[in-house]
Amino acid sequence: MSNQAIPVLDHKLALSLLESFNSQGALMAWNARLTSMSPGACEISLPFGQAVSQQHGYFHGGVIGTIADAAGGYAANTLLMPVSECLTAEYKINIVAPGLGDTLIARGKVLKAGKTLVVAGAEVFVVHEGQEKLCAIMQQTLFVIPKTTADKN
Amino acid sequence: MSNQAIPVLDHKLALSLLESFNSQGALMAWNARLTSMSPGACEISLPFGQAVSQQHGYFHGGVIGTIADAAGGYAANTLLMPVSECLTAEYKINIVAPGLGDTLIARGKVLKAGKTLVVAGAEVFVVHEGQEKLCAIMQQTLFVIPKTTADKN
Amino acid sequence: MSNQAIPVLDHKLALSLLESFNSQGALMAWNARLTSMSPGACEISLPFGQAVSQQHGYFHGGVIGTIADAAGGYAANTLLMPVSECLTAEYKINIVAPGLGDTLIARGKVLKAGKTLVVAGAEVFVVHEGQEKLCAIMQQTLFVIPKTTADKN
Amino acid sequence: MSNQAIPVLDHKLALSLLESFNSQGALMAWNARLTSMSPGACEISLPFGQAVSQQHGYFHGGVIGTIADAAGGYAANTLLMPVSECLTAEYKINIVAPGLGDTLIARGKVLKAGKTLVVAGAEVFVVHEGQEKLCAIMQQTLFVIPKTTADKN
Repeated sequence: MSNQAIPVLDHKLALSLLESFNSQGALMAWNARLTSMSPGACEISLPFGQAVSQQHGYFHGGVIGTIADAAGGYAANTLLMPVSECLTAEYKINIVAPGLGDTLIARGKVLKAGKTLVVAGAEVFVVHEGQEKLCAIMQQTLFVIPKTTADKN
Repeated sequence: MSNQAIPVLDHKLALSLLESFNSQGALMAWNARLTSMSPGACEISLPFGQAVSQQHGYFHGGVIGTIADAAGGYAANTLLMPVSECLTAEYKINIVAPGLGDTLIARGKVLKAGKTLVVAGAEVFVVHEGQEKLCAIMQQTLFVIPKTTADKN
Repeated sequence: MSNQAIPVLDHKLALSLLESFNSQGALMAWNARLTSMSPGACEISLPFGQAVSQQHGYFHGGVIGTIADAAGGYAANTLLMPVSECLTAEYKINIVAPGLGDTLIARGKVLKAGKTLVVAGAEVFVVHEGQEKLCAIMQQTLFVIPKTTADKN
Repeated sequence: MSNQAIPVLDHKLALSLLESFNSQGALMAWNARLTSMSPGACEISLPFGQAVSQQHGYFHGGVIGTIADAAGGYAANTLLMPVSECLTAEYKINIVAPGLGDTLIARGKVLKAGKTLVVAGAEVFVVHEGQEKLCAIMQQTLFVIPKTTADKN
């Protein structure tokens, strides 16, 4: 149904990433999809709707922040899973244009992979009348933790 | 039904704030409520549920970021509305503890009110077994714009 | 000569903090001083001069950022030294007023002390004609490391 | 003496940028140099020395932050001067490796140029034994102001 093609990652890793992503209630409630992954990079897409809107009918800034955060986190997870995973320690996001359009696309990538901390960045685009427009820029610090036994099952 | 007591703000301002808040589809979908406001400060509360969860069953980091952002923004709006309002230029948030609990409470306040830019901060608490625990700290820059004619109607 | 009173910290900790501070060439070149410390908090002061100025004759934004970063870091070090110390993982600073004055004062405090990460904040004030004015607000993530043998000597 | 080649900018703009840069006492005290500029981009270099060091003999984190901030600001100024200029509203920087080396190089570029706000980024590298190594990543918001009459003279 959705286009979750994950060409260059091994099968076990891909499953681990999708299983984690699909168990995030907040992202699922918005119909967010992992639309692309490669080592150190990740793309998440999200259709417009009432549940992701703000008062002017655009994508909500918090929604934009959430998928930017997720895109950076899953970019890091491509390098960490299934052995480890990451938690967001902090992120900073600039909203640079209104989120006007029918689809939101966040592209995250790892900027520096340390043993305990990973720094990632993401750009968020809004698609309006077939054109992608940059609407947000994020920089983020992720904390690496062992993947719990419960998650491994 | 909800406890949207706004004791110290004038009636027109309070209406303007609530009307703006209640027209944010993303916040409404989560049953977020403006639970307190005073000049330069704002509190938003949010019950736990599937649509605000992440993969471990806690409040999602993006949800925490969203209500922190909203709490800072509406804290600024208490000083700006109904003449002006603000847009988020950027925010930075540290997640300092897992969002485990039944209610999320964000308390925003204005740290510096400039003519064009407002700097606000917010602390987010998660309520677990009746105890509030700090789970996130945010710092934010807001951009002041005139309230549009459409919004005033 | 300078007022480096450290009333509430024990002697060994105070020595460790001062030794570390005084070995920072950049801070020494500016005549920065640790003017107050208590558990989880720290104050650094800095006199105006050509070497800390920008093009309009104010304190340079980078200097303001530097002492904010240092104030947060030494606030954390009051809880960590002499066993451990911290490195700055990242910080975010808002400059909220021009740095016009004769003295810069940064007050840092620990907002959340974790085992591996410490979140601190700092406010920076500029003293002009005897009045303190808020000029910057910082939020920061510090990374805890063991104090090296070399440093302990 | 220094290699301040500014190939693609017009003469008046280049003079305006250099005049501004060279009047920053803090950067001059460190022997910082504008080593490259093009529309929307800027490179600043800085030799190692006692006055830019921290307690372990590396480049100080505050110094790294300062030239990252300056690199982003002058990247923006290439698009603004001589009509306007910019002030730093805020920046966020991740230190990703120790600043060990003989030269620090910051490369800033404009990520989004708005009318009132400009978002810029910078990467900072440290040169050690002839090799450049990434040591910091910055994201920044700049505020556009008219260039004052005094500055224009």
